[in-house]
Amino acid sequence: MKLEEKTIDYKKVLTTIYHNVVSEENKGAIATYIPELAKVDADNFGVCLLTMNNEQFGVGNWQTKFSIQSISKVLSLSLAYQIFGDEIWKRVDVEPSGTPFNSLVQLESDFGIPRNPFMNSGAMVICDMLVSHYENPKEDFLAAVRELCKSSDISYSEAVAKSEASVGYRNKALCNFIKSFGNIKNEPEEVLGFYFHMCSIEMSCQELSQVFMYLANPNFTTSTGDNVLNLSKTKRINAIMQTCGFYDESGEFSFRVGLPGKSGVGGGIVAVYPGKYCIAAWSPKLNEKGNSYRGMKFLEAFTTETEESIF
Amino acid sequence: MKLEEKTIDYKKVLTTIYHNVVSEENKGAIATYIPELAKVDADNFGVCLLTMNNEQFGVGNWQTKFSIQSISKVLSLSLAYQIFGDEIWKRVDVEPSGTPFNSLVQLESDFGIPRNPFMNSGAMVICDMLVSHYENPKEDFLAAVRELCKSSDISYSEAVAKSEASVGYRNKALCNFIKSFGNIKNEPEEVLGFYFHMCSIEMSCQELSQVFMYLANPNFTTSTGDNVLNLSKTKRINAIMQTCGFYDESGEFSFRVGLPGKSGVGGGIVAVYPGKYCIAAWSPKLNEKGNSYRGMKFLEAFTTETEESIF
Amino acid sequence: MKLEEKTIDYKKVLTTIYHNVVSEENKGAIATYIPELAKVDADNFGVCLLTMNNEQFGVGNWQTKFSIQSISKVLSLSLAYQIFGDEIWKRVDVEPSGTPFNSLVQLESDFGIPRNPFMNSGAMVICDMLVSHYENPKEDFLAAVRELCKSSDISYSEAVAKSEASVGYRNKALCNFIKSFGNIKNEPEEVLGFYFHMCSIEMSCQELSQVFMYLANPNFTTSTGDNVLNLSKTKRINAIMQTCGFYDESGEFSFRVGLPGKSGVGGGIVAVYPGKYCIAAWSPKLNEKGNSYRGMKFLEAFTTETEESIF
Amino acid sequence: MKLEEKTIDYKKVLTTIYHNVVSEENKGAIATYIPELAKVDADNFGVCLLTMNNEQFGVGNWQTKFSIQSISKVLSLSLAYQIFGDEIWKRVDVEPSGTPFNSLVQLESDFGIPRNPFMNSGAMVICDMLVSHYENPKEDFLAAVRELCKSSDISYSEAVAKSEASVGYRNKALCNFIKSFGNIKNEPEEVLGFYFHMCSIEMSCQELSQVFMYLANPNFTTSTGDNVLNLSKTKRINAIMQTCGFYDESGEFSFRVGLPGKSGVGGGIVAVYPGKYCIAAWSPKLNEKGNSYRGMKFLEAFTTETEESIF
Repeated sequence: MKLEEKTIDYKKVLTTIYHNVVSEENKGAIATYIPELAKVDADNFGVCLLTMNNEQFGVGNWQTKFSIQSISKVLSLSLAYQIFGDEIWKRVDVEPSGTPFNSLVQLESDFGIPRNPFMNSGAMVICDMLVSHYENPKEDFLAAVRELCKSSDISYSEAVAKSEASVGYRNKALCNFIKSFGNIKNEPEEVLGFYFHMCSIEMSCQELSQVFMYLANPNFTTSTGDNVLNLSKTKRINAIMQTCGFYDESGEFSFRVGLPGKSGVGGGIVAVYPGKYCIAAWSPKLNEKGNSYRGMKFLEAFTTETEESIF
Repeated sequence: MKLEEKTIDYKKVLTTIYHNVVSEENKGAIATYIPELAKVDADNFGVCLLTMNNEQFGVGNWQTKFSIQSISKVLSLSLAYQIFGDEIWKRVDVEPSGTPFNSLVQLESDFGIPRNPFMNSGAMVICDMLVSHYENPKEDFLAAVRELCKSSDISYSEAVAKSEASVGYRNKALCNFIKSFGNIKNEPEEVLGFYFHMCSIEMSCQELSQVFMYLANPNFTTSTGDNVLNLSKTKRINAIMQTCGFYDESGEFSFRVGLPGKSGVGGGIVAVYPGKYCIAAWSPKLNEKGNSYRGMKFLEAFTTETEESIF
Repeated sequence: MKLEEKTIDYKKVLTTIYHNVVSEENKGAIATYIPELAKVDADNFGVCLLTMNNEQFGVGNWQTKFSIQSISKVLSLSLAYQIFGDEIWKRVDVEPSGTPFNSLVQLESDFGIPRNPFMNSGAMVICDMLVSHYENPKEDFLAAVRELCKSSDISYSEAVAKSEASVGYRNKALCNFIKSFGNIKNEPEEVLGFYFHMCSIEMSCQELSQVFMYLANPNFTTSTGDNVLNLSKTKRINAIMQTCGFYDESGEFSFRVGLPGKSGVGGGIVAVYPGKYCIAAWSPKLNEKGNSYRGMKFLEAFTTETEESIF
Repeated sequence: MKLEEKTIDYKKVLTTIYHNVVSEENKGAIATYIPELAKVDADNFGVCLLTMNNEQFGVGNWQTKFSIQSISKVLSLSLAYQIFGDEIWKRVDVEPSGTPFNSLVQLESDFGIPRNPFMNSGAMVICDMLVSHYENPKEDFLAAVRELCKSSDISYSEAVAKSEASVGYRNKALCNFIKSFGNIKNEPEEVLGFYFHMCSIEMSCQELSQVFMYLANPNFTTSTGDNVLNLSKTKRINAIMQTCGFYDESGEFSFRVGLPGKSGVGGGIVAVYPGKYCIAAWSPKLNEKGNSYRGMKFLEAFTTETEESIF
C-alpha cells in the first residue's frame, strides 16, 4: 500500500536481506520423496529480481539451475488458458482447497473436479488438455516455455522425470481417480508422462524471473510480438496464485509476503508485483508445508523492508 | 495492473454499470434463515465509492442502512489485532478453509483452531477475546466502530440480534464445540450474545465506505490522531480478506474482481484498493454461496471497466 | 458356533478368568472429562452372569453401583422402539459410523440424521422423542427402567448429571447442531437435561444383568405380563448393538468377543447371548477407544474359554 | 433367538418366499460399470440352502453360474488368515467404515491402513499378501477355492477380468494410493491383475453354499482332512462379515436379516448361520447401496419366517 513512489535501492535491499537470512540457521528438510531431487546441495540459496525497467539484480546462486517442479503449473495453466479460454474452468475450479497439494479427499465429494489448477489434481487436468491439444506435447510445451524465456537453454531433466515416475504412486492414484470420474480424457499413463516431464524442467532464478515477466508486465510480448495473455486473463492467473499458489500455506504467504506467487518442492518460489517486478528465490530446504524455508523468509523480509505489497 | 495513471471518471463508470446491472434480472434469494432479515425489500441496490482524495460517489440506495452481518467480522478482527497484536494467531489461523462459512468439519480435525477469522468459528474466537478485554463489550465495541466512522449514528438492531439468537442453533453448536476444545474462554452464551449483536450492526454503503477507509488509506487517523493499524498489520488484514473474505467463493471473487473484500448475508460487500479507494455495494439477493448477486456483478464490471485491480 | 450342547461350569470359568485378569496390569485411564466420574476407585472390577435358567453368578465388585452412562442408550432406544415402532428409523439410521462417539463430522454430510442410536447424536434424537412423549420425562423413564429391573432401588445421580452438564460443551454442540437441521423438536436445553440424567443412572453388574435380560430371553415379561419388545424388535436391537455398540471399536469387539453388547465410559459393559444369558462387567479404566480395558479382556477370555459366541 | 428347537420345513419356506418375492416388482439396476457384467439377464433369481445335515434345497436359477465379485474377498481373507495368522491385522483393520466400498477418503487419514478386508482397499492389501506368498497366485488361489468346493468346475471369467481391468480406474487409484503409503509390497499392476481375476470367479448358488460351509460347520474338512480355519478364526471371519459384509449397508443387513454374510455387485449374497446352515441367493439387480435387491428381500423374509437369526 503506497501513496507516493519512493526510490528503492533494490540491489542494496536484496544484498542486506540475503546476508541476514544466510546468517541464520537453515531450517527445514530437502524433499526426498523424489530420489533424484534429494541429491541437491541444501545450502544453495539464490535470488533474482527483474523490474519493469528491465533492471536485473541477482544474489547468491541466482544463475544455478534447479528443478522448478510445481512452478511449472503456472506455465501450463497460462498456455491452456491461452488456447482454450474460459472453457478450462468447466473442468477445474479456482478455489483454495484447505487441504495438502496431493489430497484425494475433496475430489471424491467434488466428483473429480479439482479445486484449483495448482493442486496436483488440477494440474493433471490442465496437462490432459495440453496432451489433447499438442501434436507432440513434451516438445511443444518446452518450445513454448523457451519462447517465454527467449532462451533455448531450458530443458527437461530426464533423470528427475524418470525418478519421479518410479515412485509417483500417489500421483498415479490421483490421475486414475480423476479418470474414474471422466475428467481425464487421455490415458493416465500418457498424462502422467507429460506431467512428470513438465515438473522436471530446470531453470535458474535468473531464467524464472524472465519467464514469469508476462505476469508482471502488461506490455510483455514474445518474439512474435504477441501478448501471452490479455490483461484480464493475466489478472486472473495472478489472483489464483494469490489464493492457491502455496498449497495449504497460501493464506500464510499472502499474509506474510502479500504478493501473488507459486512455489515448488525443488525449493523455488516465484512472485510478481503487477506493474513493478518479478522476483525468484531458491533454497532447497522446505518447511512443513512444503515451501522453501529461506525463500519464504527472504520474501517476507523483502516486502516488509520495501513496504511494497499489493495490499 | 497499470503502468501509468489514467484519469477515470468514477461517477460516470459507477452510473453506467449501475444501470446495466439494474437492467438485468435480479437473481438469487434473500437470506431467510434469520426471520428479521427476510423482511428487507429485495430490490434495494446501492453503491458508494470513496477515494483517497476524499471524493465520494454514490448511486442507488447508497444511503439506506442495512444489516452488515459478517462484514462486521473485519472490524472485530482489526480491533482485536490492535489490542492483542500477533497473539491472536495462536487461536485462529489465516488459511482459506475450502468449506462453507458455518462448517464444523475442519474444527474437529484442527482441534478447535478455526481456519480463519472470517468463518463464523474464527469470528467467535475473536469475539471471545474482545469479551475478555472490554469492560462492556457491546457498548465499547460500538463506540470503537462509531469512532472509525466518525459518526454517532451507528447502532445495533436489537430486533435482528434477537431474531438471530432465536434460531441460531448452528452458531450455538459452533461456539460450544470450540469451547469443548478450550478455545473459547468465556461462557458460550455471553460470546454468542456479543456475536449476534456485532452482526446486527446497521450501516449504509456511504457509512461502510467511510468506516473501512482505514484499510485503503495508510494516512487514515481517528479523531485522536492515531492510526487504526500500522502499515504491516493493515497489509495483513487485506491479505486475509483477499484469501478468505467470501467463504468458499473467495477464490472466485479474487478471480473475478481482484480486490480484497468482505461480504455479509445481508447482501453487503466492502472492497478496498489499497492506496486508491474503498467501495461498498449492497443488494439483498444472494447467490448460492451466500454472496450478493448484484454486488458481485457490479464489482466485477467495475474493476474490469476501470482496468484497476491489485493484480 | 456350537453343534451340541455341552455343560459349562460358569462359576468356575468366571472365577478363573477373573483372577487371571486381576493378576495382570490394569491398563488404561479413568474417564476424567466428567469431574464426578473421576472420583471412582480405579481398581473396582466386577462381573455378573445371569442365565436363561435364572442362575446368577457374580464375582468381584458385582454388587457395587456405578454410572452406567452410554449403556442407558439401549434402554432409551428400546423404550422409544416400543412406543413409536419403526417410525424412529426416519430420524436415526442403523449403520456403524466409523467415527468416534461424539463426532460431528458425519452429521454435516448426513443433514442431521445420526448414523445410529448409540452415538451421542443418535441417543439425543431418541431422547428428544421420549421428551415429546412422556409427561414427566425423567420420572417416567426412571419408572420404566425400574420396572425392567423389577427393583425400585435404581436412581439418577444428580451429582453426575450436574457435573456432566457443567462441562458438556461438546454434547451441547451436538444437540444444537442437530436442532439446526430440524431433527430435534424440543429445546436443546430440555433434551440435554434429560440426556445427562439418563446417562447418570447408577446400577451394579447384578442389576444390569437383570435389566438387560429382555434382550436375551424371549420369554421375558415385566410385572404386567407384557414383553418389552417382540421377537423381531429384540433381534434388531441386538443387531444394532453388534454393529454399533462400541463406538469405533465395534468391529473389534465383535471380532474378539463375538456377542452383541454396549459399553459406557463409566467402565461398564453389558453383553447378551440370545437364548442363553446376559453378562455385565465393570472396571473403570478405559482403553484408547473409551471401552473398559478389563471388561473387554474378561469378555474376550470368557467367550474364548466357553467356546460360546453367536458366530 | 430361540429357546427350543423346532422343525422347519426349509423346502416349503424357501419355495413360498421365492414365489412371494418373484410376484413383486424387481427393482434396482444391474451394475453396468463393468461392461461384461451388464450382459447378464436381470430376471435371474436363485437360492440354495445347505444345512449341517448336508441337506440341500435349491429354488429358481440356483445352478446357474454368475460372477461372485466381492464375495470372493471372504475366500482370499480366509486363505490369508490361514497362511499368515494374526499378522494380517497389522495391515488391515476390522472396523466398519461408514463409507462406500471404494472410498479413498479414510485411507488418507488412516495412512493407508484400510478399515476392513471387505472394502476394495482392504481386499487389495490381502491380495498383495497372497501375491507375495503364492508361487503362481492366480493358479494357486483357484486351486484352493476348488478344494473348498470339492469341485474342479470353478474358473475365472477372463472376459470379466479383462473388462474390469479396462475400466477399473478407481481401483487402480486405490491400489496406487495404498502403495504410496507402503502398504502394498508388490507392483500395483500385479496386485490388480490378481484382484480382478479373483473377483471374476464364477459360481452358482449351489456351489457358493458348498464353498462357504466352512464358516457354518465347525466340523468341515477339506479332502486332506484339515479344517480351513480353527474355531476362533472362523468366529472372527463371521464377526467381520456381520459388521462389514455389506459396505455401508452392513448395519441395515444385520438389522433386517441378522446373519453374517457377504454380497457382490454381481448380485450374489452368501450368509451363514453358524452351527446350522449356509445360504446363497442371487439376483442381479442392485439397490442403491450396491446389494442385490431381491437377495436382501429374500433373506429378510427367510430369517423372519423361520424366526432363526443369531440375535
